[in-house]
Amino acid sequence: MAPEEAPRVAPVRPGPSLEIMALLGIPEVRPGDDLAAILLEALGSTPGIPPLRDGDVLVVTQKVVSKAEGAIVDLEGIEPRQEAIEFAISADRDARQVEVVLREARRVVRMEHRVLITETPHGFVCANGGVDASNVGPGTGNIVTLLPVDPDASAGRIREAVRQHHGVDVPVVISDSFGRPWRWGIVDVAIGVSGLLPIENLRGSPDADGRIMKSTVRAVADELASAAELALGKTGGRPAALIRGAAYTRGEGTIREALMPASWDLFR
Amino acid sequence: MAPEEAPRVAPVRPGPSLEIMALLGIPEVRPGDDLAAILLEALGSTPGIPPLRDGDVLVVTQKVVSKAEGAIVDLEGIEPRQEAIEFAISADRDARQVEVVLREARRVVRMEHRVLITETPHGFVCANGGVDASNVGPGTGNIVTLLPVDPDASAGRIREAVRQHHGVDVPVVISDSFGRPWRWGIVDVAIGVSGLLPIENLRGSPDADGRIMKSTVRAVADELASAAELALGKTGGRPAALIRGAAYTRGEGTIREALMPASWDLFR
Repeated sequence: MAPEEAPRVAPVRPGPSLEIMALLGIPEVRPGDDLAAILLEALGSTPGIPPLRDGDVLVVTQKVVSKAEGAIVDLEGIEPRQEAIEFAISADRDARQVEVVLREARRVVRMEHRVLITETPHGFVCANGGVDASNVGPGTGNIVTLLPVDPDASAGRIREAVRQHHGVDVPVVISDSFGRPWRWGIVDVAIGVSGLLPIENLRGSPDADGRIMKSTVRAVADELASAAELALGKTGGRPAALIRGAAYTRGEGTIREALMPASWDLFR
Repeated sequence: MAPEEAPRVAPVRPGPSLEIMALLGIPEVRPGDDLAAILLEALGSTPGIPPLRDGDVLVVTQKVVSKAEGAIVDLEGIEPRQEAIEFAISADRDARQVEVVLREARRVVRMEHRVLITETPHGFVCANGGVDASNVGPGTGNIVTLLPVDPDASAGRIREAVRQHHGVDVPVVISDSFGRPWRWGIVDVAIGVSGLLPIENLRGSPDADGRIMKSTVRAVADELASAAELALGKTGGRPAALIRGAAYTRGEGTIREALMPASWDLFR
């Protein structure tokens, strides 16, 4: 890495206000599409989106990343194993989709009571291994998306295209919807980052009263993903948002920092 | 409930952009303080906060709610049980604080490897039962905050004060920072709501391609809490934010809807 590209690790202070702007007019993304170019086009054409500024963050949802990168599977031709067939019957699912989840899994965490939780090759523990059928495009009833192979790299490519085109280094977060044990429903979390630290360790920092905080580890990339979802919604058509004014820390982070270290995972 | 107060269950559509504005100048909150009055004052005096509008949401962090309601404990005079002393030594904690966590707990979920996870009387499963010492005010080294006794009611009181004062029905979310299994770090989630549905069930709704979504349950109150944290930060002094332009559904919801039903909880 050249000296002028040395990682910047510097906190971006919270503004008194934060704005989240959905990019509009993004067409259906197809395998092989240049997603960065599509996002740059939408940044330029969405009414009300201001010129990019230092401190901005771009959040892009997993599905368009997977589609552009061809991380999709046609269920036509997938032969489900017996275990997948049995689970699919009990859970009212497509056995071929269950088969794809099992093929993608590094480890099956739970497969019972209609719930299939796996650990992906990236180390994410999530329902259905991130394999999803919603919003994959019209007339694609048999197509499912997989998680991108290397979501940090996906984020890095978009960041680099934005930097080249606009001359501003805008961190990028790739988001996906995950459930949580003990809490009902899904929230968007980060599955890939470039240009920011996904986890901010405030241990040793003073709080408002000067008391040293012992264990505050802020999952800021996950919060950026959740915040973007509020402007994007779940019904599709809005796969990316620009966030301005958030507090985060720049740096050459990787989403691997957001994975619970195995020694801390009491449910392993 | 009078007919004119009949619950409204109506989706608030996402705007193309969403704004999160921290309320500034909120003084140290003390037991017995009128938190709603303090928030109303800050809404009026924070530069740049516009007049309240239909669709706005107010997010208030747990600590000021607990302090105003007197949900605090002075560790002076707490006699820790042997189990608390032993865990405190192994985890480099204050044994009296561990004792308070155990007294507040409905159930101890995990107490090992320096991690203490309990189920609170509200049904939240969280680290240290939500008992916390950071940002409790200067010169209060021995004071910890508990979770509010009824966070939905806390939210309801603030909502009602805002409605009376401004004539606008603004849903309120009480937030706190929770960890998650499998993901490192904490994110803010909702521990109390009034005026919105914390969980939005999109099962049966069509996605962008007209495909019926089978299992999309959006934890929107948690996302509102996480989004607010990006404007508030963790070092204190900013305990509330106004969110404008988020997509959510109005209704007389309760945070109990956000708890994983016991029959679904594979880790129980």
